[in-house]
Formats: sequence, C-alpha cells, structure tokens
Amino acid sequence: MTVTLSRENERVVHVPLGDRAYDILIGPDLISHAGGEITSRLKVRKAAIVTDENVASQYLDRLVDSLQTDGVETVSLTLPPGEKTKSLEPLAAVCDMALSARIERNDAIIALGGGVIGDLAGFAAGIVRRGVRFVQIPTSLLSQVDSSVGGKTGINSRHGKNLLGVFHQPDLVLSDTSALDSLSEREFRAGYAEVAKYGLIDRPDFFEWLEKNWRDVFAGGPARAEAIAISCQSKADVVVEDERETGRRALLNLGHTFGHALEAATQYDSSRLVHGEGVAIGMVLAHRFSARLNLASTDDAKRVEAHLKAVGLPTEISDIPGELPPTEVLMDAIAQDKKVKSGKLTFILTHGIGQSFVANDVAASEVELFLKETLAR
Amino acid sequence: MTVTLSRENERVVHVPLGDRAYDILIGPDLISHAGGEITSRLKVRKAAIVTDENVASQYLDRLVDSLQTDGVETVSLTLPPGEKTKSLEPLAAVCDMALSARIERNDAIIALGGGVIGDLAGFAAGIVRRGVRFVQIPTSLLSQVDSSVGGKTGINSRHGKNLLGVFHQPDLVLSDTSALDSLSEREFRAGYAEVAKYGLIDRPDFFEWLEKNWRDVFAGGPARAEAIAISCQSKADVVVEDERETGRRALLNLGHTFGHALEAATQYDSSRLVHGEGVAIGMVLAHRFSARLNLASTDDAKRVEAHLKAVGLPTEISDIPGELPPTEVLMDAIAQDKKVKSGKLTFILTHGIGQSFVANDVAASEVELFLKETLAR
Repeated sequence: MTVTLSRENERVVHVPLGDRAYDILIGPDLISHAGGEITSRLKVRKAAIVTDENVASQYLDRLVDSLQTDGVETVSLTLPPGEKTKSLEPLAAVCDMALSARIERNDAIIALGGGVIGDLAGFAAGIVRRGVRFVQIPTSLLSQVDSSVGGKTGINSRHGKNLLGVFHQPDLVLSDTSALDSLSEREFRAGYAEVAKYGLIDRPDFFEWLEKNWRDVFAGGPARAEAIAISCQSKADVVVEDERETGRRALLNLGHTFGHALEAATQYDSSRLVHGEGVAIGMVLAHRFSARLNLASTDDAKRVEAHLKAVGLPTEISDIPGELPPTEVLMDAIAQDKKVKSGKLTFILTHGIGQSFVANDVAASEVELFLKETLAR
Repeated sequence: MTVTLSRENERVVHVPLGDRAYDILIGPDLISHAGGEITSRLKVRKAAIVTDENVASQYLDRLVDSLQTDGVETVSLTLPPGEKTKSLEPLAAVCDMALSARIERNDAIIALGGGVIGDLAGFAAGIVRRGVRFVQIPTSLLSQVDSSVGGKTGINSRHGKNLLGVFHQPDLVLSDTSALDSLSEREFRAGYAEVAKYGLIDRPDFFEWLEKNWRDVFAGGPARAEAIAISCQSKADVVVEDERETGRRALLNLGHTFGHALEAATQYDSSRLVHGEGVAIGMVLAHRFSARLNLASTDDAKRVEAHLKAVGLPTEISDIPGELPPTEVLMDAIAQDKKVKSGKLTFILTHGIGQSFVANDVAASEVELFLKETLAR
C-alpha cells in the first residue's frame, strides 16, 4: 500500500508504471492549487484545457487563474456535456486547439471534467505530436476512482463504445474531493458502486470498512478521500500487473457484463439507468450467479445486496423503471460485448466477498438460464 | 548484425523491441506469399487492407488471393494516391472499414503501398480497439528502408506534417523487392538517398560498398536485397536504443534539416523536388557545413557529393529546377521545423563518412551565413 499523506487531508497514490509512473493527488480544493501542483512536478509551459459546459461554469476560471498565477499559458475548449462529445469531431477540435497553441511534447493537455472529457482529452494527448503530457482533473466520483487510473482513452464509433483510442497514461491526476460536493446524490451513488467494486474484487477488509463508514464517505471529509485513495490504489495494483489488458485486468469488469447488457437493453437512457447503477445490479447478479454455480455462499450475495441497497443503489433488474428487458435482448447485448467464444463467455465470478476471479469458460447457456430465472422471479 | 538468410534470396531483419519485437522479411515475390508468411507468424483470421489506386491495380488482387488461400478473410479500402490521403477523413474511413469487418485485436490492418499508406494504416492500427495487429507491405524503396522501421505513424494537420499520430510497431514487415521494379527511376533514386544515409550516419564500410555496388542495387537481385536489409538493420539499431525519440534517434535526420527546408521552400512541389532528393542535397550540405566548422575534411564532403551525383541524385540547391529559394525563406522553414531554441539549432553534423553526431547548440547565425555563401556561389 503506497497511499501517503502529504498536505492536510491530502493523499497521494503512486502508480508505478516504470517510465510512465505518475501520482494521483486526492484532497480538497486541489483545483485552486492546480498551477503549483502541476508546475512543481512537470515542466509545463503551456496547457490546453478541455472541459464541458457544466463543469466550466463552476471550475474553469479557478483553474485558469491558478495556472496563470504559476506562469502557465493557457487555452481552453468547452464542449457540450454528454456521451456524444466522445466522437471524432470534438477530438479533431481538441487536437486543433492544442496544435494552434503550439503545445509541444512537454506541454500538457488538461482534462477538467468527468469520464467523457477525460477519455476524449486523453486520446488527444496521446496523438498530438505522437503524445504530449496529460493531466487529469476528474470532477465526478466515477472518474476519480475509475478512469483516472489505467491510461485507457477513447471515443465511440457508430459500431460501439470506446472502439477508437489509445493507452496513454496521465502524468498527474488531481482529484479534487470538494468538486464532488456539487454532484447530484444519484451521480455520487453511481460512482460509489465502483468504489464498492474494489472491495468485492480483492479487498474484503475495505468492503467491511465501507459497510461501516459509507455515510462518512457520502458526507465528505477524510473518509471520502480515504475511500477514493484506496479505490485508486486497488485499480493501480491491477493495472500495474496488466497494463495492456491481457489477463488479470479483466477483474475490473466485475459486474460489468450484466451491467453493460442492462445499459444496452435500456438504450443508454440515463433517466432509467446510469453506468454505476448497472454495475451495482451486475455485481449483485455476479455474486448470485457464482452462488448458483456453487462457487460462493448465498450469504455473501445477500451481504452485497444489503450494502448496495443501504446506500440507495438499485440491486434488482426490476428496480429499473420501465419495462423489463427480455432475456434474449440481454443475451444479445452480452454477445455484442465481444465476450462470447464458441458458446463460452469470459465472466468475472467470485468465491465470496473480495475473492473474485476471471473465468474464461462460462457456458452462455448457464448465463441464459440464470437470467431467465432472475427475470421470472 | 542479425541479418539472416531464410528462403533463397530472402533476408530477415529482426527488430528486438521486447514484447513489440518483429521481423522484416526482404526478398522477391513476397506479396504472392503474404498469406503463408502472415498466418505462419501471427494468428490472424481477418485482415483489412489499405492501399492506393496506383498500387491496387498492380498488387491488390495478388495479395487478396494469397491471404484467402491461407484462410484469412479480407476487406480492403483503396484510397487516392498522394500526401492528401494522410488526413482525418481517410483515417476515419480506414477505422470504419476495420470496425465494420469486426477486426479484433489479434486481427490485422495491412498497409500495401508507400509511406503515405503505411503512416495512415499504421495510425489506424494503433487506435482501432486501442491497437490491433499491423502488417506493412511497403512497395517503394523509401518506405522499405525508412518507414518500415521505427513505429512512427501519423497524418498531417493544417498546422504541419505528421502532427497527429502514435508510435505503433508493426507485427511483421514484408518488403517485396520485386515490387520495386515498377518504380520510376527517379522514385527509386530518391529512396536510394536514404540508403546512402545509413552509410553516412555510422557505417563507413556500407558507404564504401555502395560506392562500388550501387549499379547492382539499382539493377535488382541480391545486392538490392542486401542494401535494403543493411538499411533496415541500421535504422533498427538506432530505434532500439531510442524508441521514443529522445536522443540518438535524431541521427536519422542527417540531411533532413536542410532537406525539409528545401521541400518547404519549393512548396512540396514534387515536379521540382521529392523528399529523397532534398535529403541528398541536405546530406552534401551537412558534410560541407561540418567541414566549414572544421569538424570534418572537405574531401569527405566531396566524396559524398561524387557518389550521390554518380547515381543521378541532385547535390546542389541549384540543381533544383526553377528559381533558387532565398536564404530567409530557408531559415524560416528551418525555424518552423521546431528545432530552434534561443538562437540554437539541433543539427546532425559529422566528423567524416560514417561519423555523424547530434549537435544541440549550432548557432542559427552560422547556418544562415553558410546558406548565404552556398546560394551566392
């Protein structure tokens, strides 16, 4: 565990990826100190900031002020919020902004926003001059605990999500915990599903800590920073072992096969289901499915369900408003997820809380049967 | 030296880049055997071929036949020839073709063509699903000895050449020496300038061998394959030491600072000057400039000039048809090349044939004076 304390209430997670190693700083009011943190760590003379309209109105001026105070020239591009921004035209616009500003390899593209902005800006940073520095300032809980670690960047294509992109590690991540105060409760909860996921993958102690302390995590303060730091450290541990996603990294998909299928079956309609909610339901289903295969105890599945329900997350497919998706639609979505090979699925199963594992040979027919029973209940 | 012989007249250069290591096969009629070479080395089930209209009419059917005979499903996209193809719309079209064909990470994008096609297809291979396999089948001498080694891919932007791209190493390169028979003599000669460059950088024996055997290299047969193999090996040696271009790799720019400036000053008008011709003049100037700085002997500069002149390459700025570019225009172009820092240039100089070195502190004023004198002669 290399989570360390620096300033008061500030934690540093070091991601040891050789010559692509970087630090994640986690603490309050980091946006206001971004200039100092960036210039003291990286030789950046210019920065091209990418953000969205919602975030810009709250934090862009503050970030620009801080950078300029520390002598960094800035340009910025504010894009519409939402998934549609993860496409080719906005990518070209970001690259053009960076090149117009003569951003060189040692200068930085800064992502100020959630996952969409991070994925888009990171992709641009990976291709401008074949790679410039990349600083992430994630402003949602989901992006602080998920996309800020791992170096995956990308945009969507008409053929599916994240189909174009590069692996490009950030040079620095500033996770401002104060920025989370302005999230809606629903958005914070959705991000929390991924926090709980890290406990369920391989940190049973962390899951137990969350069961006791989740109210403090939601309230803000040191418990929130602690949960974010442990989440980043957990993801970093997995990523460091498997940077290019050939094996163990698949564990991070716990709950995601069912989750993605539910998102697809509800047409990515965020009024019905957002990503983290799909993952919450998916994690409960993954534990139940593991119990059904006699790999884990039903008690563990119940414990997962109880905790996620306590924080206010959905845990059943029937919790999704609107008509239930039929089994065939869900199975189609799972097949589209490119994980079926000759009737076999790669699936993240578990032996219990914090004991997840990658199973490469789960019969699609077993999954189908399980989903049918689940939907019939 | 790891150039080895496999089939008759076939050479293999191994590029030892750790888990991104790959082989370059060099020999006659490789396009007709592409299917077997690819399937025996890589588990490729599908291939998306990118080519241009000139090359397609000669080699596309042959390549497709060979791949299909060996059980590889193929799709292909034929683009207009020329530098304009290195832009965003063709890149998007290549990515879309690959995704429509459901190319997975273990499948391949194949570049069949010269440098433009290789740079474009390689970029697409680097970003589709965050990286799929990439096979290069270079059909020009320049692309066989230059862009087939090093992993640089990219497209142009309105701000300049190659400003968007990634480093993405090929998984296999098939350099079909028979394909060079259909090049114009001018195009072959231009590629030859880069062959000679490797001798001038750090292989004096190779330069001497070229002085004696260049007619055989131009005629085809074993001497041609030998020259290509040694060129690839030379470039590979430099790239392996400095994959991400932070130091020694700059040696590959011998002759290129002057060469690029001449290309820019003649508006990239290929009727007046093509890249290799600019490099030929640039190499002669680099040797003369080094002699002027008392770093090398004038005899070596004369020897370089004599050899390039013998093969029919231009060696003087005045060899370029049309009006001579004025010094200021050339100096502007050099400054635009992003290599000037507070009046100092990074320049490849030499102590003599095969003794080039990177100089980081050449005064721009010295270069200017040298160019003025050169143009006044």
